[in-house]
Amino acid sequence: MATTRVSDLETPSVLIDLDKMERNIATMQARCDELGINFRPHIKTHKIPDIARRQIEAGAVGIACQKVSEAEVFVDAGFRDIQIPYNIVGERKTRRLAALAQRADVTVTVDSQAVVDGIADAAQEAGVTISMMVELVSLGERTGTTPAAALELARHIEATDNLRFAGLMIYPSDAAIRPRLQETLALLADAGIAAETVSGGGSGASRDAHMIPELTELRVGTSIFWDWNCVTADYTSFDKCAMRVLATVVSANEPGRVILDSGSKAIHSETNNGQYGYIIEYPDARLHKVNEEHGYVDCSACPNPPKVGEIVHIIPVHTCVVTNLHNQLYGVRGDTIEESWDVAARGMVW
Amino acid sequence: MATTRVSDLETPSVLIDLDKMERNIATMQARCDELGINFRPHIKTHKIPDIARRQIEAGAVGIACQKVSEAEVFVDAGFRDIQIPYNIVGERKTRRLAALAQRADVTVTVDSQAVVDGIADAAQEAGVTISMMVELVSLGERTGTTPAAALELARHIEATDNLRFAGLMIYPSDAAIRPRLQETLALLADAGIAAETVSGGGSGASRDAHMIPELTELRVGTSIFWDWNCVTADYTSFDKCAMRVLATVVSANEPGRVILDSGSKAIHSETNNGQYGYIIEYPDARLHKVNEEHGYVDCSACPNPPKVGEIVHIIPVHTCVVTNLHNQLYGVRGDTIEESWDVAARGMVW
Repeated sequence: MATTRVSDLETPSVLIDLDKMERNIATMQARCDELGINFRPHIKTHKIPDIARRQIEAGAVGIACQKVSEAEVFVDAGFRDIQIPYNIVGERKTRRLAALAQRADVTVTVDSQAVVDGIADAAQEAGVTISMMVELVSLGERTGTTPAAALELARHIEATDNLRFAGLMIYPSDAAIRPRLQETLALLADAGIAAETVSGGGSGASRDAHMIPELTELRVGTSIFWDWNCVTADYTSFDKCAMRVLATVVSANEPGRVILDSGSKAIHSETNNGQYGYIIEYPDARLHKVNEEHGYVDCSACPNPPKVGEIVHIIPVHTCVVTNLHNQLYGVRGDTIEESWDVAARGMVW
Repeated sequence: MATTRVSDLETPSVLIDLDKMERNIATMQARCDELGINFRPHIKTHKIPDIARRQIEAGAVGIACQKVSEAEVFVDAGFRDIQIPYNIVGERKTRRLAALAQRADVTVTVDSQAVVDGIADAAQEAGVTISMMVELVSLGERTGTTPAAALELARHIEATDNLRFAGLMIYPSDAAIRPRLQETLALLADAGIAAETVSGGGSGASRDAHMIPELTELRVGTSIFWDWNCVTADYTSFDKCAMRVLATVVSANEPGRVILDSGSKAIHSETNNGQYGYIIEYPDARLHKVNEEHGYVDCSACPNPPKVGEIVHIIPVHTCVVTNLHNQLYGVRGDTIEESWDVAARGMVW
């Protein structure tokens, strides 16, 4: 039996409100257009070529993927401008990257000479050119390097066969990072090295982008669906959150406690203020604990707690990690399922 | 190129040490044999029919699955004694359950009349008999019901066509729960209702099982691989942990900080004492933060921190949730890959 109505779906299922998603795509593109910069959606949030295609049709210049194996899925689906803002390390991975560069324009980021040299070996072996941005370390202190080291890396990339220096990358591109970016751009300019692209990113990046006029593009993933974390950070509001996880109450034997059929396998185990999701129908409930297949809801503050069999809609804490748990997302308008998408790049860890 | 050596694998990859796994299978079966009770492995830890088959060959009576969709994978693979210790709620699910009962012996658990009645409708429609255990609520206060309500449910099940009362279930079956179990069994005996099965479960269940002589079977998942949580709980030791996630250092620009290519998509985001995994080669390191594709390691206490390109082995905090993130597990002895298993029941949320 083909399922065409939301009310026919089993739980847990992940719904994408198409009206909200389409509005979110248009809003982010309009923001970048207004700033005069490129928009490059990060596909990690949806992992679905058909959705990326809608972002491109709305004006995006290309896509960002976080892994070579994710990029392969999108190149297979016809995408040709691929950025992987990640240090690609290890011979098998760099060879796959080089093979990908035979089929698409591929840009990666690097933060050390070891990473540059590994990719250069594979590019030379395959006879392809790979573009490289140097990542500046941000306030998040994850990957990335200092302005002085960035200059050295840019010089090294320019001096290496089969590599092309493409510019600078930063994540997250908070306004506070601008001085570091300016310092690096000045060093590059003094050395006569052009930074064609200055790529910023992160969920809050579009809000801050006008404060970093050096940026030439934005990479954002979450803005297509938004989530509870983004509401809490004041990047958006609940009415713009396009993803909901449908869940069923499976146990309600104690006053104040109900158990959902959706635990960490369905809504993940990241938390927002000690909660695992926001239950739309019961704003006073607290989804305060999960096991793999159980969500524990404290309903003691709810005037009319749900009963066994009742279905609720959960806005997830973090959409990207929820997408990665599911084989399908359903694009819906009201009770009608218009799209049943395979999450084609789900579980692509390589 | 076929990969037959661990050193040819990309990272992150999940290795299962076959010697350890085989010893873990034998040890748990021997423990149950010694107690004179049945062992029923929970497949949620591995989600792989071939591994469950090894557990059956070692003496297990059948398997436990947490979802109907997981059970379907195992029935398709030839398993015929399936327990689903879960409240199955919703018409589509109960119909799938009834269809499954046409192909295998299926036992579920219930904790309310609403759940019993939903399953009864589907069983009657399909003309099958479904066995039901009543779940007693444990100290974990998740699903389950009280002794008095359990008696009423048992009576209701016995009085309903196409259902068979099979006994009692409890999770976790800590020794402290014995008085509740005894009280319920006495109520059932007084009512002339036989509880053929008394099913206990949980990672620590085998350790406590001799203190609950009423148990007739144990359901345990994690004992096949063990994990850091189980080491911390003193159920096992690191040398018995069979699962390791291979990860590569991709950035090491700051003294005391290295970044791995394995984040919440590879090792999950459950924590043990604020850490996301135990790095075997660097016992003084702290894997203290993850993003989806990055693991943050504080190496400030390590005499010789790892460098970019170095591969490390991580014992996960919780094996079951790691299995659910990956498409393959690799069974290895030393550097030889003997098995490449598809995680057949991965992502089965229905």
